Amino acid sequence: MVVVLEKNISDKLIENVIKHLEDFGFAVHKSTGVEQIILGAIGVKPDFDTRKVKILDGVAEVYRITEPYKLASRTFQKNDTVIKIKDISIGANEVVMMAGPCSIENEDQIFTIAEIVAKSGAKILRGGAFKPRTSPYAFQGLGEEGLKLIRKAADKYNLLVITEVMESNQIELIQEYTDIFQVGARNMQNFSLLRDLGKITKPIMLKRGLSATVEDWLMSAEYILSSGNREVMLCERGIRTFETSTRNTFDLSAIPVVHKRSHLPVIADPSHATGLRDKVLPMARAAVAAGADGLMVEVHNDPEKALSDGPQALLPDQYLELMNQVKLIAGVIGRTM
Amino acid sequence: MVVVLEKNISDKLIENVIKHLEDFGFAVHKSTGVEQIILGAIGVKPDFDTRKVKILDGVAEVYRITEPYKLASRTFQKNDTVIKIKDISIGANEVVMMAGPCSIENEDQIFTIAEIVAKSGAKILRGGAFKPRTSPYAFQGLGEEGLKLIRKAADKYNLLVITEVMESNQIELIQEYTDIFQVGARNMQNFSLLRDLGKITKPIMLKRGLSATVEDWLMSAEYILSSGNREVMLCERGIRTFETSTRNTFDLSAIPVVHKRSHLPVIADPSHATGLRDKVLPMARAAVAAGADGLMVEVHNDPEKALSDGPQALLPDQYLELMNQVKLIAGVIGRTM
Amino acid sequence: MVVVLEKNISDKLIENVIKHLEDFGFAVHKSTGVEQIILGAIGVKPDFDTRKVKILDGVAEVYRITEPYKLASRTFQKNDTVIKIKDISIGANEVVMMAGPCSIENEDQIFTIAEIVAKSGAKILRGGAFKPRTSPYAFQGLGEEGLKLIRKAADKYNLLVITEVMESNQIELIQEYTDIFQVGARNMQNFSLLRDLGKITKPIMLKRGLSATVEDWLMSAEYILSSGNREVMLCERGIRTFETSTRNTFDLSAIPVVHKRSHLPVIADPSHATGLRDKVLPMARAAVAAGADGLMVEVHNDPEKALSDGPQALLPDQYLELMNQVKLIAGVIGRTM
Amino acid sequence: MVVVLEKNISDKLIENVIKHLEDFGFAVHKSTGVEQIILGAIGVKPDFDTRKVKILDGVAEVYRITEPYKLASRTFQKNDTVIKIKDISIGANEVVMMAGPCSIENEDQIFTIAEIVAKSGAKILRGGAFKPRTSPYAFQGLGEEGLKLIRKAADKYNLLVITEVMESNQIELIQEYTDIFQVGARNMQNFSLLRDLGKITKPIMLKRGLSATVEDWLMSAEYILSSGNREVMLCERGIRTFETSTRNTFDLSAIPVVHKRSHLPVIADPSHATGLRDKVLPMARAAVAAGADGLMVEVHNDPEKALSDGPQALLPDQYLELMNQVKLIAGVIGRTM
Repeated sequence: MVVVLEKNISDKLIENVIKHLEDFGFAVHKSTGVEQIILGAIGVKPDFDTRKVKILDGVAEVYRITEPYKLASRTFQKNDTVIKIKDISIGANEVVMMAGPCSIENEDQIFTIAEIVAKSGAKILRGGAFKPRTSPYAFQGLGEEGLKLIRKAADKYNLLVITEVMESNQIELIQEYTDIFQVGARNMQNFSLLRDLGKITKPIMLKRGLSATVEDWLMSAEYILSSGNREVMLCERGIRTFETSTRNTFDLSAIPVVHKRSHLPVIADPSHATGLRDKVLPMARAAVAAGADGLMVEVHNDPEKALSDGPQALLPDQYLELMNQVKLIAGVIGRTM
Repeated sequence: MVVVLEKNISDKLIENVIKHLEDFGFAVHKSTGVEQIILGAIGVKPDFDTRKVKILDGVAEVYRITEPYKLASRTFQKNDTVIKIKDISIGANEVVMMAGPCSIENEDQIFTIAEIVAKSGAKILRGGAFKPRTSPYAFQGLGEEGLKLIRKAADKYNLLVITEVMESNQIELIQEYTDIFQVGARNMQNFSLLRDLGKITKPIMLKRGLSATVEDWLMSAEYILSSGNREVMLCERGIRTFETSTRNTFDLSAIPVVHKRSHLPVIADPSHATGLRDKVLPMARAAVAAGADGLMVEVHNDPEKALSDGPQALLPDQYLELMNQVKLIAGVIGRTM
Repeated sequence: MVVVLEKNISDKLIENVIKHLEDFGFAVHKSTGVEQIILGAIGVKPDFDTRKVKILDGVAEVYRITEPYKLASRTFQKNDTVIKIKDISIGANEVVMMAGPCSIENEDQIFTIAEIVAKSGAKILRGGAFKPRTSPYAFQGLGEEGLKLIRKAADKYNLLVITEVMESNQIELIQEYTDIFQVGARNMQNFSLLRDLGKITKPIMLKRGLSATVEDWLMSAEYILSSGNREVMLCERGIRTFETSTRNTFDLSAIPVVHKRSHLPVIADPSHATGLRDKVLPMARAAVAAGADGLMVEVHNDPEKALSDGPQALLPDQYLELMNQVKLIAGVIGRTM
Repeated sequence: MVVVLEKNISDKLIENVIKHLEDFGFAVHKSTGVEQIILGAIGVKPDFDTRKVKILDGVAEVYRITEPYKLASRTFQKNDTVIKIKDISIGANEVVMMAGPCSIENEDQIFTIAEIVAKSGAKILRGGAFKPRTSPYAFQGLGEEGLKLIRKAADKYNLLVITEVMESNQIELIQEYTDIFQVGARNMQNFSLLRDLGKITKPIMLKRGLSATVEDWLMSAEYILSSGNREVMLCERGIRTFETSTRNTFDLSAIPVVHKRSHLPVIADPSHATGLRDKVLPMARAAVAAGADGLMVEVHNDPEKALSDGPQALLPDQYLELMNQVKLIAGVIGRTM
């Protein structure tokens, strides 16, 4: 932590600030300039609330100099985390495609879509059995019945399963059926859930919260990592801004930002980020061009009848076109798909 | 729902749109203007995803005309909800003060602060036993021990208790000790938790999420209300914007906005909204002037040593000054405190 | 500027960073801790782009420690700036009321409204002759004819005039008629205009831009101040956020924030901040309670027929009620009105 | 415009609303449903302030159904606008590269950079002679001397020139030297400047304001178009959000959004959007993949010594690598570069 003192501060006040810092457990180094004095406060305290120093008399500014996360940091682990599930590697050279419907609706639907996405090159089947819906009156998912269906469909077409968990009580049940747990944007700071997911041995995909900074997001990953589960991937799915012409604002710059700060893989979800089908193709291309380690897209064989989020689901033909284009883009930057 | 068709649309397309609307269960009324045709689609479907219509060929724009919430709406209930707990009424003429530390730290701390706030006119003692912290390494609260302490302290000074619940598994335990459950900003869209809180009989204070619109917030209230619990109050505690000179941006306009749309009481929390002690007094005054039904403020007898959020806690003298000023402001608008 | 070096950095890299800092003109103080080295770079360079250091090899973080503004800073001038125009003082104990229509429309309108606001205690008459409108097809103001009318109306009712300037070419003309120049939110970073307004001798009210941080805002004030004009007041009128239930989000916390950092007076404009008449009264009360040095509100005798922004204009009776209430609130915090 | 009336509204109130609409000049069509009445108000009034209706008694909601812009709309002009300057076409199949330094600093610098970018495939040389700087103390550009230098350098290497205009008074001077006028983000709603640029015959590149919605942006384009100049291109350069890990948030989804609503070309500026050199390459790729009609990037032969924005300027080698990669990406979507 760096503490900048006010100009013309008295010696007594300087001593008082230093004493406080030492009481907080820091080693203090004083640097006296022509106009201003700077104190370096050193000690490993990633969670120290710097406002405790900011409110002391004579303190002008305070800056934290260490990242608040450790295990998620590129400083802690230089090499990229690669998550291996059966023959799939997430975070390696291959850009991984996750596709499927928003919600699992019935046997026919999930099997039809699983076949479509498997043929066009998806490796992982997505589909919600427990749905976090803004309205209590909206379709909330099939529950365990949905989990059984997606598992069967995935197995038939040699796909992995990713599905969302909404609360700790569901972990045991979902674990029987899924390969990857998804934590939704609205639960990104549900710390109880994160901690419980840190105790299991299956990979977690952590979606970015609507108003989460990159730092908040990595801190939430830290909850899972520090509880013992090191198989965490992140998913950018749009943030909330003043712009309303798309459902959210797809923050693709976050991909290279995360890759610099952290070793964790980053997936991009253009379906939720834009919320409209005709924006999914260009933004999927852009995500891969920006360096995403995987894509998650919604596909539906009959989106007009989908029970949730049909308008953002790709039609089978559109999905095929998307796969063709993003494969070529992956190739441009030396990746496979 | 109002559906605006594109100019110069063919009759066949018009029929197709109308057919879709009828299949979705709407009664359709067609209004033909000089330049454009408008379809009114009427039917009680608060959760209908209007994007399903927006993607149909020939559709220019779609507007939902009914609020997506029912029980939370002023249309549903004209009179203000007044929540009575013992001799306290929240949502009535009196502006209610909730005060206390961020976290319950030990017996001495909570009893000292309880005495201070009770003497200066608080009716409800706040304090966290389970703390949602951004960092997994930060103090996470005393748990049940904390609940016991706050209950004892409140009883001694004739105060009610409000404390935060972070997950459904904690409800049963917390229920033994608290008078009001608080749902934190990060859990505002933890729908599983909201639904479970709808099944109990104690009042809930629902804090606004960092990126929640007023509509999202009322939808989350609807989750609790529609599960059976009608004693819900809202709490404005700042939203996340580009401005960083305060911790959050205190959206005081949301108070009259909510009062117009909903019958639920609105509390304001200037401590979390601003994050710095010297901004709490002016913003507490502003919140009461804007029409808040109550205030929640953090008070600490020794904020420099507080285990969490000390920098935004008022000192006892500051709290007394705040009470004196806000009482006068309440009087200006005909309210008591 | 404080430069935090990466852990385990080589001596050669350290020397390289120090050399760069010295070449940039800074005096460098090195502080070596157990884990990390911190460099203090001292020298008066308020406009130095710290990213120049951030991109050097071995640099982990860079923090600017001096405010980028000088003349606008409370550090530079301890005492509040008080702007005196005739017998009015802005920035002193009295909370000053500026009221009038959005646009000057005709003689009858401006005289009628001038009379209403003068009787109820306004000191300054507002009204636009040159209107910045989002649409090129909207009413753009009466121009010089409008200036003449507002001057006459103000003189008749013993009011001062404030009106908006949109470009440097208008300064000479407007100067003949107005007492205070207003710079609109959309021109807050029209640096050419700001510099030209710094060369005149009449006070300037600088509205905050829709996406301006408090620091940006003070930097724009610095443009005017550094060109020679020290009579600058600021005006908070709402910022743009994701919330759409009000036209903008009224950032009232900015009032105490500015008062701490700067000596310049702060006016609040609840009419533009909320955009709807029924929110103006509560938010005017809140603004005074938060410490505003003045209010600017829109009043219209016949808002349904107003040529611009009628929906946010107060009716004469509402204006009178507002004056009565805000006077009492001003009294609570020891101010007059 | 669609006006939704409140439930259970009296006949008298309905008539009153209809009368107001007719007085405003609209033709009104009434559509009576089971629960609610909807009025369609039809008439060509793109600038009508819908709040005038929203405040009438008995009105629940009001929706504007026509876009507020005309000339900028895809409805008005189906075919893409293609701007031809000498042998360059902007908005056609070719993705056009604009590159150069942030500021023109001296003859050696601009000639060196011009040669670099010309060799690697840029068609247009960028460089500022008049610089809008947040700080009044920062380098403000070389003025006319800079214009002369960039023109000479561009001519030598067969490039076109794009440079920024900050105020109407500069138009005549800049016109002698430039091929394209750039309007900066901070001037996007400087309506006086936009109108004056509408009267000239050279193309304009209009950068998106930091807090401008796509609609605001197109409205500003409408100012130029409606004054007579139809050669307008837009430039996405990042918007301001809560995320601070990049300078701005690059809203790449805006590219397909604008392409659907408008016929105007869209350029993308990854240098200003991200603010850091190592993010420019991935985001340039992403912009082309998202469908940008051109790129604008900052290049500097010696960025450590650049007088402005050096940290976001690419080194010559990085620029060459960028060109190689984006050409391949352009090819994937069937475009040349």
